[in-house]
Amino acid sequence: MGISAIDVIRTKRDGGALSDEQIDWVVDAYTRGVVADEQMSALAMAILLRGMDRREIARWTAAMIASGERMELGSIPRPTVDKHSTGGVGDKITLPLAPLVAACGAAVPQLSGRGLGHTGGTLDKLESIPGWRARLTHSEYVAQLRDVGAVICAAGDELAPADRKLYALRDVTGTVESLPLIASSIMSKKIAEGASALVLDVKVGSGAFMKSEETARELAETMVELGTAHGVRTVALLTAMETPLGGTAGNALEVIESVEVLAGGGPADVVELTVTLAREMLAGAGLPDADPAKALADGSAMDVWRKMIAAQGGDPDATLPTAPEMHAITAGEDGYLATLDAYAVGLAAWRLGAGRARKEDPVSPTAGVVMLRKPGDPVRAGDPLLELHTEDAARIPAALEALDGAVQLAGQAPAARPLVLDRIGE
Amino acid sequence: MGISAIDVIRTKRDGGALSDEQIDWVVDAYTRGVVADEQMSALAMAILLRGMDRREIARWTAAMIASGERMELGSIPRPTVDKHSTGGVGDKITLPLAPLVAACGAAVPQLSGRGLGHTGGTLDKLESIPGWRARLTHSEYVAQLRDVGAVICAAGDELAPADRKLYALRDVTGTVESLPLIASSIMSKKIAEGASALVLDVKVGSGAFMKSEETARELAETMVELGTAHGVRTVALLTAMETPLGGTAGNALEVIESVEVLAGGGPADVVELTVTLAREMLAGAGLPDADPAKALADGSAMDVWRKMIAAQGGDPDATLPTAPEMHAITAGEDGYLATLDAYAVGLAAWRLGAGRARKEDPVSPTAGVVMLRKPGDPVRAGDPLLELHTEDAARIPAALEALDGAVQLAGQAPAARPLVLDRIGE
Repeated sequence: MGISAIDVIRTKRDGGALSDEQIDWVVDAYTRGVVADEQMSALAMAILLRGMDRREIARWTAAMIASGERMELGSIPRPTVDKHSTGGVGDKITLPLAPLVAACGAAVPQLSGRGLGHTGGTLDKLESIPGWRARLTHSEYVAQLRDVGAVICAAGDELAPADRKLYALRDVTGTVESLPLIASSIMSKKIAEGASALVLDVKVGSGAFMKSEETARELAETMVELGTAHGVRTVALLTAMETPLGGTAGNALEVIESVEVLAGGGPADVVELTVTLAREMLAGAGLPDADPAKALADGSAMDVWRKMIAAQGGDPDATLPTAPEMHAITAGEDGYLATLDAYAVGLAAWRLGAGRARKEDPVSPTAGVVMLRKPGDPVRAGDPLLELHTEDAARIPAALEALDGAVQLAGQAPAARPLVLDRIGE
Repeated sequence: MGISAIDVIRTKRDGGALSDEQIDWVVDAYTRGVVADEQMSALAMAILLRGMDRREIARWTAAMIASGERMELGSIPRPTVDKHSTGGVGDKITLPLAPLVAACGAAVPQLSGRGLGHTGGTLDKLESIPGWRARLTHSEYVAQLRDVGAVICAAGDELAPADRKLYALRDVTGTVESLPLIASSIMSKKIAEGASALVLDVKVGSGAFMKSEETARELAETMVELGTAHGVRTVALLTAMETPLGGTAGNALEVIESVEVLAGGGPADVVELTVTLAREMLAGAGLPDADPAKALADGSAMDVWRKMIAAQGGDPDATLPTAPEMHAITAGEDGYLATLDAYAVGLAAWRLGAGRARKEDPVSPTAGVVMLRKPGDPVRAGDPLLELHTEDAARIPAALEALDGAVQLAGQAPAARPLVLDRIGE
């Protein structure tokens, strides 16, 4: 009688494990439109609520990779290595990291996405640079990877098309927050991308998808296992996302901060995470002796950044736009900044115009939040703590509402918390 | 910020109860196409796996009724009463029951559906009568109810359109088997139909949707509560569906058997259930002294049947078609028929052509299974037990496969099991 969509849905609905044949069939049939969106969304909800075991996740991932092409980067004369972050607020790390790692001798093929919800998208950030374009042809992509060593661009349609379709569906059906679906979505794209090593930055905390270290660890372990099984050297770091990374959340704002890091400055947490991830990537690429801190200090990472931006039509010397409207939030008393909640800041930046509610919405290049103080910093009554930037002053009240209770002062400095919580892999 | 589909889905996905406002909004928005099919199917799966409490079910039902019109039968000069069966194999009871109850003085507005899966549909059965049509205009419907006292026809589009849309969606997304969705689907249609009393025949057993008495009882209690809350006098019987009702499963085959019952004959179980349900309906209609057994014996029920069929274009004197292909299954040894599994017989009839795989498929009027012996009957080796009727002999092997293990003989007669298991309501 063959396999039918209803049989697959019922198997998972009733708590069973899907067979390899069921998974191969349903992913392929969904890609081809034989399984309808409403059937796949019911299955996605059943997967979210019933879970999948490691074998099912591995097979599901393999089926999504097989829905498209796996890229061949053998013609690149350097070791290839990529990074993926599960998404956080103020997480602009990819911007300084890709040119930094390229400056140290590896090639970084970074296929990125756009922001949705409270976390920003790497492509949205780079598009605040005049002239820069996210879409490259395959030959442009390979040439830039060979000549510059770093590419950050949009993934082509041929890469895991099943995931592309499923991701858009999950977004509108309340089925994003499923560990098996998150792990298989990330890893199908990253494996198909063709890099020989991969470093995963799995965020934990209020501003991350994974609110608890336990679920973040399970996601990290699952993804490391998937990468390894497909011959990609994969490690994962668990990193804190209770408070935003760096001093900015927004598109042009984060590009400016990234350039500061590439110039040898920038916020300490952004520098720390960039260098830590660079060391992991270079180790994965077989270049354990490279020195990323030096490449930031001596300008070689900045040189690659400039070439990378220029190769995609951007002007690395352009002055980035700034928002016409600004509202400052000041301290009501003396003390220390104790809490600055990542989710609240991300939501505020989103409401100011930095993010989008629907895939087709435009984003504002200038909107966002500037954080003048970070947790642990001393403050005096009247000091500005945050600046809200926007093109439309009418958006400010909703941003303030998002920040209600998110900024807390205390009489003493809070205990310092580590940024890198754990490392999984190898 | 208002209510959004994703918020509603997430609430239920995470185990919460939907608010009245969420339920009203999502049912209305789905009916209007604002909530997409893929969103509603994710919600339906979340409801199936997370459940709904009685308040949610009541509100959901009310919202589905409010999506269309509630019929007004005040112009009918008799008490109105309807019956609904949750569906079983060989369950042709509606056919003799509606004219029988009308012959006893009530009016029976029976809006019925078509078969899907292993249970047959009342309209499919009646359509095996040459000329008979299921679609009536509203004025034809009211006139027939007034003049004949019984109508069995298709529900119009104005009755609970939300349920019509949701039912079709659930059918293809593996979300049929949810008690809240089953109860609200049945009761929204039956309440909107406008009868002042309702008798529910909730089937229990292998051939029923509800395999256990516990879940059947919960469904029955839920539906009785829903009907009562909407001012419909509602009672439910739990009845056995381990073995098919009567001696036939199929379209014309069941019409012929129904006419035998109306002629004062027919299988004992069909007669028993018909008379029992008729008594409940007449009591609900305020006619507790009517005598349905007499109306079967004296031909008055048959008179109403003939008028009812003729009023809808059917020829009550027509000879019904018979299948060109027949395959008999015989007993391998002497003994008693111990088991005749309802689900297997329903599946066999379906595979022989009596049912449809998709809504748009035609059904065969003549296909089905004739049961020459029922559990408890003595058999001799070589006796025919079942006849498989079909228009296409190529369908017989799949029907035999469905029946594998479904017919079991024993050395002793099995203990007789009651047909009516319990009564809920009043």
